[in-house]
Amino acid sequence: MKDFKLAVCQMLVKDDKEANLEKAVNFIRISAAEGADLVVLPEMFNCPYENEKFPLYAEHREDSISLKTVSQAARECDVHLVAGSIPEVEGDKIYNTSFIFDSHGVMLGAHRKLHLFDVDVPGGISFKESDTLSPGDDVTILDTDLGKLGVVICYDIRFGELIRLMALEGVDFLIVPGAFNLTTGPAHWDTLIRSRAIENQFYVVGASPARDVDASYVAYGHSLVVDPWGEVLSRAGIGEEIIFADLEAIRIGDVREQMPLFDNRRTDLYSIKKVKR
Amino acid sequence: MKDFKLAVCQMLVKDDKEANLEKAVNFIRISAAEGADLVVLPEMFNCPYENEKFPLYAEHREDSISLKTVSQAARECDVHLVAGSIPEVEGDKIYNTSFIFDSHGVMLGAHRKLHLFDVDVPGGISFKESDTLSPGDDVTILDTDLGKLGVVICYDIRFGELIRLMALEGVDFLIVPGAFNLTTGPAHWDTLIRSRAIENQFYVVGASPARDVDASYVAYGHSLVVDPWGEVLSRAGIGEEIIFADLEAIRIGDVREQMPLFDNRRTDLYSIKKVKR
Repeated sequence: MKDFKLAVCQMLVKDDKEANLEKAVNFIRISAAEGADLVVLPEMFNCPYENEKFPLYAEHREDSISLKTVSQAARECDVHLVAGSIPEVEGDKIYNTSFIFDSHGVMLGAHRKLHLFDVDVPGGISFKESDTLSPGDDVTILDTDLGKLGVVICYDIRFGELIRLMALEGVDFLIVPGAFNLTTGPAHWDTLIRSRAIENQFYVVGASPARDVDASYVAYGHSLVVDPWGEVLSRAGIGEEIIFADLEAIRIGDVREQMPLFDNRRTDLYSIKKVKR
Repeated sequence: MKDFKLAVCQMLVKDDKEANLEKAVNFIRISAAEGADLVVLPEMFNCPYENEKFPLYAEHREDSISLKTVSQAARECDVHLVAGSIPEVEGDKIYNTSFIFDSHGVMLGAHRKLHLFDVDVPGGISFKESDTLSPGDDVTILDTDLGKLGVVICYDIRFGELIRLMALEGVDFLIVPGAFNLTTGPAHWDTLIRSRAIENQFYVVGASPARDVDASYVAYGHSLVVDPWGEVLSRAGIGEEIIFADLEAIRIGDVREQMPLFDNRRTDLYSIKKVKR
């Protein structure tokens, strides 16, 4: 991994694709002007987070106007880009997919959300993503010029076994486009993002849309960048803003030397057989 | 699991075994008088947390005055007891072991700390537990009259793969005697305890000694009880105190129904083979 500057664009996403793309491009340009090497957009940056909207906004990756627009901005600005996510259509299925581009605008890979968000909290949030979306089937780890990048989307972050796997495969920084809400956000967002960084001793970046109280699904906001010790390097409020953080390669090695969690794992024990009753 | 009341005794541990045991007994009695069904003592409740002291305070489980004293108190008070931990000697080895008793004072099981704490943070904490202690080799899950109880000790809590295993085996409440310090405590204690509850949707109880600024190893304090949604039911300060919480069986099922994490696991993916590059 190299030392680099990261920007998280906490965009306010509206029911207007063209306006969303225009905003994304502006935010990429501002981020680059501030010296960012990697720019991160939030989950569903081009589309309101509503089951009804996903099919209407969905695009094929081959001729996606959204991807074309933001990858062109990445190339022009010479920045790497994790394009949050968009509804992606392939055949008769729609996926919640994050596309990753290098600073030439070349697509390095894509992550389709693995764990779909089907939740029903009485008096809180109710949302059934699987009504419209299909899950992906691959864990996404990409070698980039900046270091080894992992991507998961929102609900995926709750599954520590997945994230541990990615750390064991050498991920340096994990990008998490995620739209937690006003029930799950205050209760879980910070704690999960920070815990994944602490237990895996790598960088974790949570990228939320800005809060829109008029939306049917209200995002929590509070995008944040956490270092391998679990320290919050940068944190957004609830509104539209760009946050920045300097990621230092040496920090990962330092933390792992001070507290050698990976050397101390007891892989001889992590199976059902070793349970004593 | 039954509904029950739990007490965590955040004892100030001194370099005086007899005084520590007297205090433990008093705290068990006070807890029982307040209606507790399960009483939890902190890590190394009978011994200062120092490598030099572990051999001096160590006892064989068969003729341990510490275990005899506290299990007798448990029986007299009709409470279950997780006796934090003590240095336990067997052969030429010393273990950091938690003993668990039912309300008749009968030993239900024991947990020997699995992951030893060998840490060296420049300007922060330096401690090499493996200089004197040996690790255990078993995961500890016990069926009790109150429900299925899991025990891990301190550094063990950092290893999410172990805790996930225990959740999959049906643990209702996880007890974590732990002496984090003034470096790791503020940085990690709350986040790890709460995250383990959130991601496994069960109760997690962190039981620390009180803070003794005159000790060579200064414990963080801030014992806490967290429910399956990650909500803190009770939290101690830094001094000597007993905290209480009412644990409700229905809460586990409710949370798991609202957010079916265990149904949503993608066990088809949690192996290295599924990593896409």
